[in-house]
Amino acid sequence: MPTLQELCALVQGELSGEPSTEISGVAALENAGPTELAAIENQKYVPLLADSRAGAFLVPRELGQELDRPCIFTEFPQAALNLVIESFGLHVPRPAPGVHPTAVVEPGASIGEKVHLGAYAVVHAGAVVGAGCVLSAHVVVEGDVVIGDDCVLEPGAVVHNGARLGSRVHLGACSVVSRQGFGFAPSPQGPIKLHHVGLTVLEDGVHIGAGTTIDRARFDETRIGALSALDNQVHIGHNATVGQRTFIAAQSGMAGNSHIGDDCKLGGQVGLANHARIGNRCGIGAQSGAMGTWEEGTTLLGSPAFEKTEFFRMLSALRKLSKKKKQ
Amino acid sequence: MPTLQELCALVQGELSGEPSTEISGVAALENAGPTELAAIENQKYVPLLADSRAGAFLVPRELGQELDRPCIFTEFPQAALNLVIESFGLHVPRPAPGVHPTAVVEPGASIGEKVHLGAYAVVHAGAVVGAGCVLSAHVVVEGDVVIGDDCVLEPGAVVHNGARLGSRVHLGACSVVSRQGFGFAPSPQGPIKLHHVGLTVLEDGVHIGAGTTIDRARFDETRIGALSALDNQVHIGHNATVGQRTFIAAQSGMAGNSHIGDDCKLGGQVGLANHARIGNRCGIGAQSGAMGTWEEGTTLLGSPAFEKTEFFRMLSALRKLSKKKKQ
Amino acid sequence: MPTLQELCALVQGELSGEPSTEISGVAALENAGPTELAAIENQKYVPLLADSRAGAFLVPRELGQELDRPCIFTEFPQAALNLVIESFGLHVPRPAPGVHPTAVVEPGASIGEKVHLGAYAVVHAGAVVGAGCVLSAHVVVEGDVVIGDDCVLEPGAVVHNGARLGSRVHLGACSVVSRQGFGFAPSPQGPIKLHHVGLTVLEDGVHIGAGTTIDRARFDETRIGALSALDNQVHIGHNATVGQRTFIAAQSGMAGNSHIGDDCKLGGQVGLANHARIGNRCGIGAQSGAMGTWEEGTTLLGSPAFEKTEFFRMLSALRKLSKKKKQ
Repeated sequence: MPTLQELCALVQGELSGEPSTEISGVAALENAGPTELAAIENQKYVPLLADSRAGAFLVPRELGQELDRPCIFTEFPQAALNLVIESFGLHVPRPAPGVHPTAVVEPGASIGEKVHLGAYAVVHAGAVVGAGCVLSAHVVVEGDVVIGDDCVLEPGAVVHNGARLGSRVHLGACSVVSRQGFGFAPSPQGPIKLHHVGLTVLEDGVHIGAGTTIDRARFDETRIGALSALDNQVHIGHNATVGQRTFIAAQSGMAGNSHIGDDCKLGGQVGLANHARIGNRCGIGAQSGAMGTWEEGTTLLGSPAFEKTEFFRMLSALRKLSKKKKQ
Repeated sequence: MPTLQELCALVQGELSGEPSTEISGVAALENAGPTELAAIENQKYVPLLADSRAGAFLVPRELGQELDRPCIFTEFPQAALNLVIESFGLHVPRPAPGVHPTAVVEPGASIGEKVHLGAYAVVHAGAVVGAGCVLSAHVVVEGDVVIGDDCVLEPGAVVHNGARLGSRVHLGACSVVSRQGFGFAPSPQGPIKLHHVGLTVLEDGVHIGAGTTIDRARFDETRIGALSALDNQVHIGHNATVGQRTFIAAQSGMAGNSHIGDDCKLGGQVGLANHARIGNRCGIGAQSGAMGTWEEGTTLLGSPAFEKTEFFRMLSALRKLSKKKKQ
Repeated sequence: MPTLQELCALVQGELSGEPSTEISGVAALENAGPTELAAIENQKYVPLLADSRAGAFLVPRELGQELDRPCIFTEFPQAALNLVIESFGLHVPRPAPGVHPTAVVEPGASIGEKVHLGAYAVVHAGAVVGAGCVLSAHVVVEGDVVIGDDCVLEPGAVVHNGARLGSRVHLGACSVVSRQGFGFAPSPQGPIKLHHVGLTVLEDGVHIGAGTTIDRARFDETRIGALSALDNQVHIGHNATVGQRTFIAAQSGMAGNSHIGDDCKLGGQVGLANHARIGNRCGIGAQSGAMGTWEEGTTLLGSPAFEKTEFFRMLSALRKLSKKKKQ
């Protein structure tokens, strides 16, 4: 078992407590046992510390220094915990480079060095797959696709033509990227589907969840900014754009041509209407439906969505009214 | 064609009517013809009986005894109808045991007796698959997975590391079980994805729909209780827990760390917020969004969700108010 | 580069402007450069024309005739643009007929002429696949399935038993058609899943998005009418029926036995309750939840959904009330 001192060195923290204390593993704050390490990253969890049986804590100095408990002080406790988890070998390891004999790589596809191609992965002619990528079992990459270095595509992910992935992009299982957008128009023969010939750009470090679908632009681009993360079963319509470091929770959807800025947080099952424009640093509560233009820093709630204060005012007025009726 | 008497014996019911009547098949109450059998399981459908042209009915004694029509009395008419459907060979048969030559079973995977492995199924080293399981075409089972006996995995289902399936679990096509949860934290290099090292436990008889996604716990467990059923495109976040015999309709989502008890019914497109705690025997109407703690037996409606009576009072007050404005 | 005259002939339009003008490509109205062609199909975009730098426009005569700009007059500008896109080779081409050596076609499956079977596609015994179909990589077609001519199944689409597809049906990646419906009933052994033995009928020209799931009928049919289009991640329950030329945006869901007529438009994340009946030419706004019966031509908004005028009246009354409280 590693000692507290060894783990402290690993995460480049500062030790407070007996260095030779042995740590057997990691756990959640409320369930950790006396030889386990737990992490607390903000004030909210400090009240739980007293009751925790954890053997030691990863904690920012300002939260932990009053504690008379073994601590490793670090500005980034959860990131540090990731390193500890890796040192214990508890994480899911990255598959080793190598091409499974059943993988189909068509002539004319370009596969970088140290790539892992899983069983039955299919890469069509013309595709470019960067170095160090992991294409898991049953992944399909069409021909007009560029994938940067060190990307991970989980089993069954489908990358259609027109996709341009940066480096370190992660696609969840059964996600579908760069699908033809949902656009139809009348013709002499009845409604026909419009060709979508733009791109789908996922910048560096973008994370896409399982079952998430992202449509290709009609012209120009659908774009997800660097380090943004989309949870499972999210839908992004054609020509929608997402800024950087924006988090979108499960089952949310952005209609075609909608936009959300940098550093936003969307709850689950949120909808953005066509041409909605949401500024940077906005928050949108779960199940809200946002239309129109909202400036930087707004918090939205409700369907249709209103600014938070207005939403609560309306809800409160309605509750009062309904109680009055009762009397 | 089997006679009414034969079908009655098959379902262990009680016959009321001419035993030698021949039955040609089964149908819905409103469309059944004079040689077809239909089932009625509750009071609600009794008024439709008079108009039904069905040749005979599977019906509980208390609903059918006043009828002057051929009946098989049984406490469980729909379960009985399942048996009749099987006797006619109308159901989708379970594939025979056998391993398709294209299935990839890595050395170190343990496959039970009488398992069906479909074309291009992939089972990674370390996985344990119980006896009598059906892994359909293109199923992927990662290495740190245990699957009990008699489970059915539909085409393209993906079972990630950390999954622990009981017996008789059913996974729909393109469902994704035990995916790494949606958790990120700051690091010196910007936001990083947190390792999720807990388990995903699906107890005996759990049913998971097509395209449904279930995330692995950060620590501890995500758990779906025995005989609970999730429809298509449901999302279950990391560390969420579902009790036993709970039914969740399509496109509903449970955020991380939310909980719902035993014997609950959720409509479609319902959302449960982080840390929501819903007691046993609760009902939640379609599109509702539940937060906080609700005790056993509560019915919730609306987004945000209120207890049913309060929801209707609010809705009614609003409707009255809007009509007043009109005048 | 083709000339305006050549493109005009291609789309069978009427030329207004210098015939020898060379066109280098196509683009969106707002981004088109001086050698590019853009399309405008309705009045709404006419104000943008003046600012567009496009070299020429595809436009209906009545919108374009006042313009002093090079135009190709056509009643169907977007359909014409599709033809131009194809002439430039910008669209995703249909894969050539041919059977990949890794495709598994079980004996007893019937495959039409000029079919494309991608890598690892699986067609079970008994299935009928019409002429000219494209079954992309990893598609799975079960045995009791009939697929008409010229259908396209994107990678990973799963077609279960009971599906009956017309001609020119399009299935998105990871879509799941004809899954057993979500129906359970009590039995002496606890809840059991009911056999669904009806059909799933997708009429000619139906379009199904990625990750969309369509359940098989208990008896009778689940049916999507000709030329209707469902976006990504839509869910259609057992025995639900959709009329012709109806468009359903992403993440909407229809519960079992619900019905929507011809020529309807549903926004994203809409829900239809069990047994809801929506007439022809109805519109339902995003995130609305419709119950009960609504006659032809109704526009619905809200959850629960009301007729549009009533919805706005309620919303307006609530806003006024909440502002009053402030004072």
